[in-house]
Amino acid sequence: MATEEMTLSVPVHEHEEHAHKKLVIIAWSGDLDKVWPQMILATTGAALGMETTIFFTFWGLFSLVKDNKRITGENWMQKMVAMMDHPGVDHLKLGKMNFAGAGPVMMKKLAKEHSVASPGELLQLAVDMGVKLVPCQMTMDLLGLKREDMIDGLGEPAGATVMLTESQDAITLFI
Amino acid sequence: MATEEMTLSVPVHEHEEHAHKKLVIIAWSGDLDKVWPQMILATTGAALGMETTIFFTFWGLFSLVKDNKRITGENWMQKMVAMMDHPGVDHLKLGKMNFAGAGPVMMKKLAKEHSVASPGELLQLAVDMGVKLVPCQMTMDLLGLKREDMIDGLGEPAGATVMLTESQDAITLFI
Amino acid sequence: MATEEMTLSVPVHEHEEHAHKKLVIIAWSGDLDKVWPQMILATTGAALGMETTIFFTFWGLFSLVKDNKRITGENWMQKMVAMMDHPGVDHLKLGKMNFAGAGPVMMKKLAKEHSVASPGELLQLAVDMGVKLVPCQMTMDLLGLKREDMIDGLGEPAGATVMLTESQDAITLFI
Repeated sequence: MATEEMTLSVPVHEHEEHAHKKLVIIAWSGDLDKVWPQMILATTGAALGMETTIFFTFWGLFSLVKDNKRITGENWMQKMVAMMDHPGVDHLKLGKMNFAGAGPVMMKKLAKEHSVASPGELLQLAVDMGVKLVPCQMTMDLLGLKREDMIDGLGEPAGATVMLTESQDAITLFI
Repeated sequence: MATEEMTLSVPVHEHEEHAHKKLVIIAWSGDLDKVWPQMILATTGAALGMETTIFFTFWGLFSLVKDNKRITGENWMQKMVAMMDHPGVDHLKLGKMNFAGAGPVMMKKLAKEHSVASPGELLQLAVDMGVKLVPCQMTMDLLGLKREDMIDGLGEPAGATVMLTESQDAITLFI
Repeated sequence: MATEEMTLSVPVHEHEEHAHKKLVIIAWSGDLDKVWPQMILATTGAALGMETTIFFTFWGLFSLVKDNKRITGENWMQKMVAMMDHPGVDHLKLGKMNFAGAGPVMMKKLAKEHSVASPGELLQLAVDMGVKLVPCQMTMDLLGLKREDMIDGLGEPAGATVMLTESQDAITLFI
């Protein structure tokens, strides 16, 4: 990253301290119990001064869809997805333990009692802290989503090439 | 990686540009919606000139089993697995949203309309692009699979030691 | 890591060979088929001489709960979790293929026939090999778990900050 020539006066550890100051999270899942670690790790990374990027792809992209948006495409897949109400982050399901629909409510309630921020709050916090939120262009195309269907504060939609290039010299997690 | 001695004439960034030119994907899942990112990331990595390895383990190994192969072992586990028809990559299920069996068909159809290659095509593309495909020896043993049951173009079966050694200085993703 | 000044007599590759001698596993899942790779990779990393840490969070934390412990909190979430018998590592379910409850038994039996250690054995082996086992403080709080509810040999409970700091210059896997 640094483009200056190596000089003898620079200690090795100075160099190494910057070796992993980047964090890239590939947010693949849209389940509440995965979105939480996605957001907690990203905001923690930003708080630590790491250059942090979340790349939202597949089911993870639903976290970025506006709450008042229903996906209403014209092909089969889009119609099936359209049957799911409210894809936005406040309506996430819990992957592992749904308790007949009560799980997310309970977990949010519990988190509130213990002063853990909700995914929606953490997503806003991530935007405020300068975390780069990048939606996957391919997933947007597959689901028939446009920029105006997504929340504000996002970076340019991108693909796997950008994602892997960002991941050079970063801590990279597929969640 | 480079074994030459450091000289003053080599700028730091030249060195760093090669720091993460490796990509290792631990393909644990055999679900269609995970196989897709496994294959898209691997072929993208190879296209970017990265030294790319996919290590297929647990359910991920099923992507490598020939379509006309049914697992027919003699112990319990192998018999249970044998009840699953066609473990190969063209018959993958969709992890999150199966729509009573229609999901994979729809997603493949949708992907075709949008010119996204199928997992089977991407797997062949990966072989053609020189991605190293390494089956997990332990999983093969557990499932009673032999080399001749697997598709062509694979590297030597290996274990966690080889996998972790490959991952030194690589972007490593568990998918 | 090394804090000494760079000298011309140190070859670059000597330096690089130590670049990723760390392995950090974020053990998020508590399913048997995920706990297995968590443990196999950690013990293999330790055997390779890597400085290895497992950070147990969300469902992954259940691997560390004593077998004779039932979670009996006073709030909703804790009561729901309390209905699950025996959260400890010997009672893990199989994520993908449960076969009406028979899956874990079969897989353990099969593993035994093939001389693959059980997760419980691997967890003990990890402790013995010096793998650092770190429970997530936030998850403990959410589930109402205390240190005395957990198995012996654990490090201090910690949060995302410690986890990301540990991950600097490590192979980091979210499993």
